[in-house]
Amino acid sequence: MHADRLLLDCRLATMAKTGVPYGTMEHGAVLIDGGRILYAGPQAELPQSAISGSNIVERLDGRWVTPGLIDCHTHLIFAGNRVEEFEARLNGASYEAIARGGGGILSTVRATRAAGIDDLAAGAEMRLARMIRDGLTTIEIKSGYGLDAESEMRMLSAARLLGRKAGVRVHATYLGLHAVPPDYAGDRRAYVAQVISNFLPRVVEAGLCDSADAFLETIAFDETDVRAFFDAARARNIPVRLHADQLTNGHGAKLAAAYGALSADHLEHCDAEGAAALAHAGTVAVLLPGAFVHLGETQKPPVALFRQHNVAIAIATDCNPGTSPLLSPLAAMNLACCCFGLTPEEALAGMTVHAACALGLSAVTGTLEAGKDADIAVWEIESPAELSYWAGVLPCRRSYARGKPLYTA
Amino acid sequence: MHADRLLLDCRLATMAKTGVPYGTMEHGAVLIDGGRILYAGPQAELPQSAISGSNIVERLDGRWVTPGLIDCHTHLIFAGNRVEEFEARLNGASYEAIARGGGGILSTVRATRAAGIDDLAAGAEMRLARMIRDGLTTIEIKSGYGLDAESEMRMLSAARLLGRKAGVRVHATYLGLHAVPPDYAGDRRAYVAQVISNFLPRVVEAGLCDSADAFLETIAFDETDVRAFFDAARARNIPVRLHADQLTNGHGAKLAAAYGALSADHLEHCDAEGAAALAHAGTVAVLLPGAFVHLGETQKPPVALFRQHNVAIAIATDCNPGTSPLLSPLAAMNLACCCFGLTPEEALAGMTVHAACALGLSAVTGTLEAGKDADIAVWEIESPAELSYWAGVLPCRRSYARGKPLYTA
Repeated sequence: MHADRLLLDCRLATMAKTGVPYGTMEHGAVLIDGGRILYAGPQAELPQSAISGSNIVERLDGRWVTPGLIDCHTHLIFAGNRVEEFEARLNGASYEAIARGGGGILSTVRATRAAGIDDLAAGAEMRLARMIRDGLTTIEIKSGYGLDAESEMRMLSAARLLGRKAGVRVHATYLGLHAVPPDYAGDRRAYVAQVISNFLPRVVEAGLCDSADAFLETIAFDETDVRAFFDAARARNIPVRLHADQLTNGHGAKLAAAYGALSADHLEHCDAEGAAALAHAGTVAVLLPGAFVHLGETQKPPVALFRQHNVAIAIATDCNPGTSPLLSPLAAMNLACCCFGLTPEEALAGMTVHAACALGLSAVTGTLEAGKDADIAVWEIESPAELSYWAGVLPCRRSYARGKPLYTA
Repeated sequence: MHADRLLLDCRLATMAKTGVPYGTMEHGAVLIDGGRILYAGPQAELPQSAISGSNIVERLDGRWVTPGLIDCHTHLIFAGNRVEEFEARLNGASYEAIARGGGGILSTVRATRAAGIDDLAAGAEMRLARMIRDGLTTIEIKSGYGLDAESEMRMLSAARLLGRKAGVRVHATYLGLHAVPPDYAGDRRAYVAQVISNFLPRVVEAGLCDSADAFLETIAFDETDVRAFFDAARARNIPVRLHADQLTNGHGAKLAAAYGALSADHLEHCDAEGAAALAHAGTVAVLLPGAFVHLGETQKPPVALFRQHNVAIAIATDCNPGTSPLLSPLAAMNLACCCFGLTPEEALAGMTVHAACALGLSAVTGTLEAGKDADIAVWEIESPAELSYWAGVLPCRRSYARGKPLYTA
């Protein structure tokens, strides 16, 4: 029996549905070949030939092993940052004054439009490297700061390039309806029409669109806009996701569910009807505590409703320069527990198995199970709950992405 | 002109009161000799002989340089952790059930009493190493999990040992009135009497008491207890500090001020009278956003009152296993901005110049000024506000403690 790599003497939090918390298996082993998991289970049940037949055998001295973390909602690619705006706001400047002074999302759009693919990828490289230190092996990256076809495609190409260079799986999301660009100021409908007839088809054609996303909110796009965009995406077999019910209850969860969206994200103002719709559609609720904290919000997402309706909950950093400059998936898990009341097991599921589901990657990653890609993180912890308990800790000792060593502390 | 080390081509956030935000000096230089700062200011005004006379010259390529960070409120030394309690609580267990199950602070007391000095220091070593990665050069460490003379002295000896081994300045605080130990259950007054007549004198005699601390709260010690303890500390010329007004308004700020305390800490429920008293006494208000977030509190400390009365504000991690498992000073600064509305400049002052003041170390550290110890951090940032803007970032490139290299990324 041949294999590329064998991890011995580990404690597995497989995150598979085994009926045991965290899908835990003590005295576990993981056998890896061709980038895939051949076996993840009790070491005692491993065929003896697996040890002799493995090229590399690593003994992990009882360390915990989990699926590699998956950050399923980020805006990791952008130029510039918004630190001046952050400082101005805390010094008492109003949002209006900041916008008048050239700040806000459109300042990121200006900087991003001016940047080339290599610049965008290079700017995000340090941010991705930081996330990899937290055991991340898959990341979703949205466009949405270009807002014209060329700039959006540069962002998405940069996301692909970044993933290839780092050895990390990237899910590229075309966030066509993020904001109305200055060139369409005052004519949102015309922008939406242009997105549908021109930008979306080109982004899809270029192979840069793993899913399509929109921002449904009183300050952004309305239901008519989103439906038109989602219809166009559906016509091209592109799955959709939605920034929903963050600042107000716009019945975004229901709308996302109606389109069988992969995920509905934020959801602070989601109601019982929305939660039921998500459950019915199998749409994942993606919670983003980084933005909640950064914006000083007080309305929490209805976690009790999600549990009651059996909605799959994912957690993500929402890493972006305006509302969530958060670079640590583990910090997002800690905040999800402290601010939203998630259990540590829910938080870890939210960064593994449910995050995979939110990206349509359940068959490929998110659990330690035979047949899935060998996306694996090894931790210096005594129990998997520690991943959510400590804030600011750096417990990842090593990781593997599709079987290849990705990070070593 | 001879010097050990010269840092050239840096941007200085001196945090000295120069009338400029952050005490900024562009095109700066820092000259270090004998562990002290000989010069910190414009490079152009540096004598030419300083360059030729320095043993080591480092060009920092325009990087930002700040005082080393100072974490002025931690419980870094402890045995065990409380991750099981964290998980049980998020799974719905009540505080009462957790206490009945042997959890809560007394579980930390049991584990800490059972540990030797070397074990305690070793257990905290990884935590301190994490903080050093954030540019920390000085840390306050409290006792308070021993609650008998021998155990408290072991904790404080471990704190001193840890500082010597790591090359970090440690301020050791005897937290005599933290909780009533099981051996005095139901007889708090007897415990306080024992602390005053026996424990405090022995801790002071052993040279382990840079300051004395108490927890004034309905669930802990009352004003009579604290006054008796503070009187005893004062009689031995030991400065005091107080855990004050965290869960209820116990007029702790006023009490701390009446004793000229170095600091009053937490202060979520402090009122205008308390803020005025702190200002009058020159007592520093130490804010602890880690505990605020971990406990899911909603009552914020009265930052507007502190500003109005000109109270010096410090920020600290409160690192402890029960209510703030926070290992990142930068994360505490970010949370102080996001949760309490501090400006990035206030947050950095809170981890440097005002934190030094809270430890009675203003003459020694906390700013980049000639005559102070060369406690210095070098950062990969574009502006000092970035230290508070990003969450989970690791921007420290190197640090020096008393002129010696402490950390290199």
